[in-house]
Amino acid sequence: HSQLKKYVIAPYDRRYRLWQTFLVVLVVYSAWASPFELAFGKVATGSLQPVDLVVDAFFVVDIILTFFVAYLDKSTYLLVDDRKKIALRYVKKLWLPMDVASTLPFQFLYRIFTGKVNRGDVFGFLNLLRLWRLRRVSELFTRLEKDTRFSYYWTRYCKLIAVTLFAVHSAGCFYYWLASSHGQPENTWIGSLVHDFKHRSIWLGYTYSMYWSIVTLTTVGYGDLHAVNTGEKIFNMLYMLFNISLTAYLIGNMTNLIVHGTARTFAMREAINQILNYGSKNRLPEGLREQMLAHMQLKFKTAELKQEAVLENLPKAIRSSVAQHLFRRTAENTYLFKGVSEDFIAQLVTEMKAEYFPPKVEIILQNEIATDFYILASGAVDILTYKNGTEQFLSKLGSADMAGEIGVIFNIPQPFTVRTRRLSQVIRLSHHDFKQMLQPYSEDGKTIISNFIQYL
Amino acid sequence: HSQLKKYVIAPYDRRYRLWQTFLVVLVVYSAWASPFELAFGKVATGSLQPVDLVVDAFFVVDIILTFFVAYLDKSTYLLVDDRKKIALRYVKKLWLPMDVASTLPFQFLYRIFTGKVNRGDVFGFLNLLRLWRLRRVSELFTRLEKDTRFSYYWTRYCKLIAVTLFAVHSAGCFYYWLASSHGQPENTWIGSLVHDFKHRSIWLGYTYSMYWSIVTLTTVGYGDLHAVNTGEKIFNMLYMLFNISLTAYLIGNMTNLIVHGTARTFAMREAINQILNYGSKNRLPEGLREQMLAHMQLKFKTAELKQEAVLENLPKAIRSSVAQHLFRRTAENTYLFKGVSEDFIAQLVTEMKAEYFPPKVEIILQNEIATDFYILASGAVDILTYKNGTEQFLSKLGSADMAGEIGVIFNIPQPFTVRTRRLSQVIRLSHHDFKQMLQPYSEDGKTIISNFIQYL
Amino acid sequence: HSQLKKYVIAPYDRRYRLWQTFLVVLVVYSAWASPFELAFGKVATGSLQPVDLVVDAFFVVDIILTFFVAYLDKSTYLLVDDRKKIALRYVKKLWLPMDVASTLPFQFLYRIFTGKVNRGDVFGFLNLLRLWRLRRVSELFTRLEKDTRFSYYWTRYCKLIAVTLFAVHSAGCFYYWLASSHGQPENTWIGSLVHDFKHRSIWLGYTYSMYWSIVTLTTVGYGDLHAVNTGEKIFNMLYMLFNISLTAYLIGNMTNLIVHGTARTFAMREAINQILNYGSKNRLPEGLREQMLAHMQLKFKTAELKQEAVLENLPKAIRSSVAQHLFRRTAENTYLFKGVSEDFIAQLVTEMKAEYFPPKVEIILQNEIATDFYILASGAVDILTYKNGTEQFLSKLGSADMAGEIGVIFNIPQPFTVRTRRLSQVIRLSHHDFKQMLQPYSEDGKTIISNFIQYL
Amino acid sequence: HSQLKKYVIAPYDRRYRLWQTFLVVLVVYSAWASPFELAFGKVATGSLQPVDLVVDAFFVVDIILTFFVAYLDKSTYLLVDDRKKIALRYVKKLWLPMDVASTLPFQFLYRIFTGKVNRGDVFGFLNLLRLWRLRRVSELFTRLEKDTRFSYYWTRYCKLIAVTLFAVHSAGCFYYWLASSHGQPENTWIGSLVHDFKHRSIWLGYTYSMYWSIVTLTTVGYGDLHAVNTGEKIFNMLYMLFNISLTAYLIGNMTNLIVHGTARTFAMREAINQILNYGSKNRLPEGLREQMLAHMQLKFKTAELKQEAVLENLPKAIRSSVAQHLFRRTAENTYLFKGVSEDFIAQLVTEMKAEYFPPKVEIILQNEIATDFYILASGAVDILTYKNGTEQFLSKLGSADMAGEIGVIFNIPQPFTVRTRRLSQVIRLSHHDFKQMLQPYSEDGKTIISNFIQYL
Repeated sequence: HSQLKKYVIAPYDRRYRLWQTFLVVLVVYSAWASPFELAFGKVATGSLQPVDLVVDAFFVVDIILTFFVAYLDKSTYLLVDDRKKIALRYVKKLWLPMDVASTLPFQFLYRIFTGKVNRGDVFGFLNLLRLWRLRRVSELFTRLEKDTRFSYYWTRYCKLIAVTLFAVHSAGCFYYWLASSHGQPENTWIGSLVHDFKHRSIWLGYTYSMYWSIVTLTTVGYGDLHAVNTGEKIFNMLYMLFNISLTAYLIGNMTNLIVHGTARTFAMREAINQILNYGSKNRLPEGLREQMLAHMQLKFKTAELKQEAVLENLPKAIRSSVAQHLFRRTAENTYLFKGVSEDFIAQLVTEMKAEYFPPKVEIILQNEIATDFYILASGAVDILTYKNGTEQFLSKLGSADMAGEIGVIFNIPQPFTVRTRRLSQVIRLSHHDFKQMLQPYSEDGKTIISNFIQYL
Repeated sequence: HSQLKKYVIAPYDRRYRLWQTFLVVLVVYSAWASPFELAFGKVATGSLQPVDLVVDAFFVVDIILTFFVAYLDKSTYLLVDDRKKIALRYVKKLWLPMDVASTLPFQFLYRIFTGKVNRGDVFGFLNLLRLWRLRRVSELFTRLEKDTRFSYYWTRYCKLIAVTLFAVHSAGCFYYWLASSHGQPENTWIGSLVHDFKHRSIWLGYTYSMYWSIVTLTTVGYGDLHAVNTGEKIFNMLYMLFNISLTAYLIGNMTNLIVHGTARTFAMREAINQILNYGSKNRLPEGLREQMLAHMQLKFKTAELKQEAVLENLPKAIRSSVAQHLFRRTAENTYLFKGVSEDFIAQLVTEMKAEYFPPKVEIILQNEIATDFYILASGAVDILTYKNGTEQFLSKLGSADMAGEIGVIFNIPQPFTVRTRRLSQVIRLSHHDFKQMLQPYSEDGKTIISNFIQYL
Repeated sequence: HSQLKKYVIAPYDRRYRLWQTFLVVLVVYSAWASPFELAFGKVATGSLQPVDLVVDAFFVVDIILTFFVAYLDKSTYLLVDDRKKIALRYVKKLWLPMDVASTLPFQFLYRIFTGKVNRGDVFGFLNLLRLWRLRRVSELFTRLEKDTRFSYYWTRYCKLIAVTLFAVHSAGCFYYWLASSHGQPENTWIGSLVHDFKHRSIWLGYTYSMYWSIVTLTTVGYGDLHAVNTGEKIFNMLYMLFNISLTAYLIGNMTNLIVHGTARTFAMREAINQILNYGSKNRLPEGLREQMLAHMQLKFKTAELKQEAVLENLPKAIRSSVAQHLFRRTAENTYLFKGVSEDFIAQLVTEMKAEYFPPKVEIILQNEIATDFYILASGAVDILTYKNGTEQFLSKLGSADMAGEIGVIFNIPQPFTVRTRRLSQVIRLSHHDFKQMLQPYSEDGKTIISNFIQYL
Repeated sequence: HSQLKKYVIAPYDRRYRLWQTFLVVLVVYSAWASPFELAFGKVATGSLQPVDLVVDAFFVVDIILTFFVAYLDKSTYLLVDDRKKIALRYVKKLWLPMDVASTLPFQFLYRIFTGKVNRGDVFGFLNLLRLWRLRRVSELFTRLEKDTRFSYYWTRYCKLIAVTLFAVHSAGCFYYWLASSHGQPENTWIGSLVHDFKHRSIWLGYTYSMYWSIVTLTTVGYGDLHAVNTGEKIFNMLYMLFNISLTAYLIGNMTNLIVHGTARTFAMREAINQILNYGSKNRLPEGLREQMLAHMQLKFKTAELKQEAVLENLPKAIRSSVAQHLFRRTAENTYLFKGVSEDFIAQLVTEMKAEYFPPKVEIILQNEIATDFYILASGAVDILTYKNGTEQFLSKLGSADMAGEIGVIFNIPQPFTVRTRRLSQVIRLSHHDFKQMLQPYSEDGKTIISNFIQYL
């Protein structure tokens, strides 16, 4: 990052990030406390007031801090550290007034200015302004969902749980508030069961509220607690209608996660089933079927090592760098390319692609037309020949050894079968491409020929 | 649009569209009022009657208007403005009789002809004919879903809410009608709880009905209100069976929206995860991994600017026009193409495609084989060279500058590394394609060579 | 179909199909009656007995008929009309004994042999054997789902409704049987509410059972009817667990139908949004954007007329036949191909592919390189030229006219712009392909040249 | 498998697999017994104690056995049979202590050491440690899901049922434990209905618990049993919240299975509908439409026999082997290739691909340009010619016969139409490819020519 102006912080600053994460914890507290204080008015002026004041203080600090944090301009992709612009943007987007309104401790100010403790519902509703802070949680989840360091599945799952819990908590608290602010306590959902519920413990009231809220959300609906007066009925209806959306949203998300989560298993099973079906319908011999199966299974296991899919979307320069990193050493150690020019090696390596072969699979079949030759990047292969119908072991090749080049250079059918011993990584070179690549490097061509003759 | 006959309106007429939209508002009222008047018969002859009459009057006007609105023939794609054909089509499709039947104020006519106020259920059911008007809402949603100016998600969401609310409202009203028209009021779902419910306020009856309806639809089923007599049981069953479909439909739609809504995030995460996995499994150096990651992220951010996917489905003439618009100025400002013929520029531009590169990414690597050269459309790049293992800054290129053309023209490995300074848009030209394109323009070829020599 | 043996019917025989369809109606009756007779034992020996006997008689006829119906061998795809083989297959697959067991009227036979009317539960359960007939319904739905004459959506929907109704009906009847066969009537789910329920009407019992069944299936669970004794509790649990699967199955199917049903709308919106985004991000002029949009919309409207997707999977001979049918007449009427050999026309037509262009879209741009020429299959286009910056109308072309051939043959940039007047179907011919195709037909080449010169 | 050290068992050993499968049965018992013994404490020291001890004994044996089972190293893919390494890995991964803790019969040991029978809840909770064994079930399902010998659908379905039943059982037992360990029995969910429930039969308690558990899980929520005291309310809430996830998981999985299960039917219907639409929109003749339809239907029926999709992902050597197996005999029996060299046959076979044609479909049309010729692998075709507008039957071809080679070799339009009699498998050879393949085998070329002349 380039140098910022004095007293201006980058939004990527590690300490600023920490501060933001710490604030999210406070937001969670606010999200819980605001509806709770509406339902149980006395805690707002009692036990929870000092906590609220401390939390508010932190947010005051954050408001001030915001004037000193640079922001990223969306069109130029540049950090803006001009303090005037920062302030202007903060005020313009209506964030500042909302931030201030959600931070002012109205009840406390009223007490200071009037000297009276007011537990009126007005302050309960004013406190709900603090829920404006929830946008920070929403932003956090949006960021986490795009951050590949965190599992999308768990991020999404946590988000769904958070949304559900907040809905349940808010509805329960509001429902309790409806009962507690109703004129006839015995004509309310809780009062018809628990006499004198207003003077019972907060714990009891909160348990009942949450119980009703969850029983309704999950559509269990035992019916032991149900709406009694019209106001409750109306809120209950709204809550139930909202719950349809929420449930559908939860199920839809879960389905989405499951569909994506099992996509790979389905693809693998599909591919393997195809091979099994194909083999049995065409009555292929058992050994051949097993080779096909082993190869397909390996293909899925080594899917992450496959280059094509990953590299094809990248620009040429990056692809070259990757190929240099992966294959240069193997190419330089191959006997055929000893002493050739740096340029040719670089050019050659760029075109290389690795394939994986499981153990006991033929790479080259004896007598097949020689069109490709191979460099062994890792693993081990056997050179075999068939004489009078029996298989004879000739030799074993290891890393940086070549196979099939004799057939290619003499333009004869492959004289040997090449079969893997264990999991092997093999680089295939097409004879045709190789010749074309060699054309401008006549010196290197001679070196290669002399290398080959020496080897023979 | 071509000229229409006198007194005939085009269906696309802005004022006619407005009128139609206004009618949809009235339809929403009708959809609410018809079941409501069935349940609470007295409002139909009381407070709501004048409103109903006014609404009906508007629909009378619309019926007359329909005889003057041209229509689009489905097979010839032409507007038909012959009034006879318009009338014939309106009558034939059974729309006219249904429109008339749904507009006649039966109750009011009965009162005028007989002089008596009848609150019988017959009129309640006749009023349900007005629900025929709902086809206008259905048509509106079908049109909105295909109109890309509106978000498909919100359109679909509104439709689902509308369907749900209408189902809830209709079922509630009908359920209340069942109770109010039952012989023994105390043997009904509401009468067993609320004595004398018929003489209580409409508001109370409506609240109870809607409460029961929503409690049943959401399958909460508290059980405080439940079917008492056989008729109620049967309607309840039908409603519950219908609700299975409705719920499944809601969930299915939500799942569909979520699956499509998250498809892009999933694709991005998948691509980035592949790169991260590939990098770590193959132990690529950290710098290279970061270049790969930056490029992939940029690719998704600039997806909307990508031409290929958008343009490939369009005919050649349109593609040419787009290319002329995007690249002509850049091509004309490039030193190499100063003074070449218009035709050659036009031809060249047609083949151009832009790529985006994030900052600090190599476009050309020193010593790589020169097969392509580049024109910078926007952004800035550095020209670097490596001497004795250290990187040396040579110069900086800006818009309409070229890179890599020296290597291409002299057929030597690229003499410089070219690395982006910031987000840059680059046009790549393949040497091979360029030569072919130049063949028929021998004059322009000479101009280009002389431009190049001059530049050197 | 080949000739069958005497007295042997083909399974595809229209009258046999009708008979099968008629039997499905009887199966529906059986599916309703069997659980119903278990619950309300007296109807089995009373009012429903004659109906049952008639239905059974029809199935006896079908059993006999089955011995005379040929079947399709799965491996040879041939009809087997050997009566011995037919009988053997019927007996072997255990269908015969099951069919017989599900057809015997046990209760009636008992009455005949013993002279006593027995209403024991044994016969109620023996009657459930008739549900074996349901496999016919299952087979019907499997066939309908693969039959493209019926909408997959409605077939699947009917199947889901049928499954649901059968589950609801069976569970309700069994639950009633549990109560009616319980020792203490007042200790049952219905007896605790309705005293003397056994002596009330069947209608009342059936309504209560179905009401409970649906309330439980839909998970509404009002609670007015609930399990009282242990037996009921256990059955209730099994039913509820089964319902989870059923509900999930219903929702899953609905989601699947919605996902597939909206796929095309999503694809269209996606494509159009891409074009809109691309146009606005690259600031293309308004006219160009509208051309792009019109083309994309037309593409989706004429998707059914597109050949490529449909034809590419068919063998060459079929593709040729289709092309002959579609384009031969147009090709023969084109001035350039007057008098050429049949063979060349046939060959030419095989390679033709039609594209659709919306009105007011350019097919050819003046001055573009001439690589293709066009034959107008239907619609109309204008020939325009630009002089001194203004557009001049030259002529109008119609069906079987050609455009762009002058540029191609003289190898010069296109001298005219060609723009559609209305929806036009155009055949594009690449100059390169055309030349290759013409090579072996030197005579036809001369004819074409002379046609061209004459035309000029 | 290579030889293992003495006394060390391979994890793939058939007897060891059997032992593991047997243990899974015991795990199922443990999963049922542990929560059950918590709820009904007396059975833990009573009737179930001997069963528990025997089960524990088997797991002791398994712990000892684990020290003698080789394991597969994840990085080298090799079996490790070094007993030290095996033991180290077992201890390190914290499996050993957990296995021991879940196997110790705490209650029994307490009884032996203190001589007293303790039914305290401590032991009930200690017994829950046995649920650690459930990881074996989880591992089993993970393995089965990847094992293509088992249907994915049923495996997944069983898993979902197992998870549901375990959740229901555990919640029911814990809920009963809450009631039975509560101070005031009449103030509990069961005690408020059943007086003296602690002294009633275990069967009654278990039925009530499971009934409540299932009523809640399925969200039926009759309300006859509901939480009474605060502890129950809280557990109920947790259970309900958990159930949202479980239900969403069940529905999501079901949807996923249905979507994948119907994908093929949808693809088939889509393809067939396209053909029907295309045919009717373009007014193709009836016969042609039927040929198109028959071909498409066959394509889906023989999808499993299709090579391309299956083989394209396999390495060249495997592809060659498959082709040799499938086509060598047909190629050797074809008259044209009698007496040619082994090498050429091998090369030829590698390039062969089979297509299927339904009955009555034209493979070659008379007068079409000859570009391919065909070898009949199986089935039968008719050779037809058109003279004076009528079709004349010439001859019938069978397996290993050729068609179309005359047109190809003399470079004339096809002299005959070739139409299938029944389902036929046909190998297509492109003339162009064939000529290229023949180039290096000049001797074989002569043989083929002489074969052809002889045949004429």
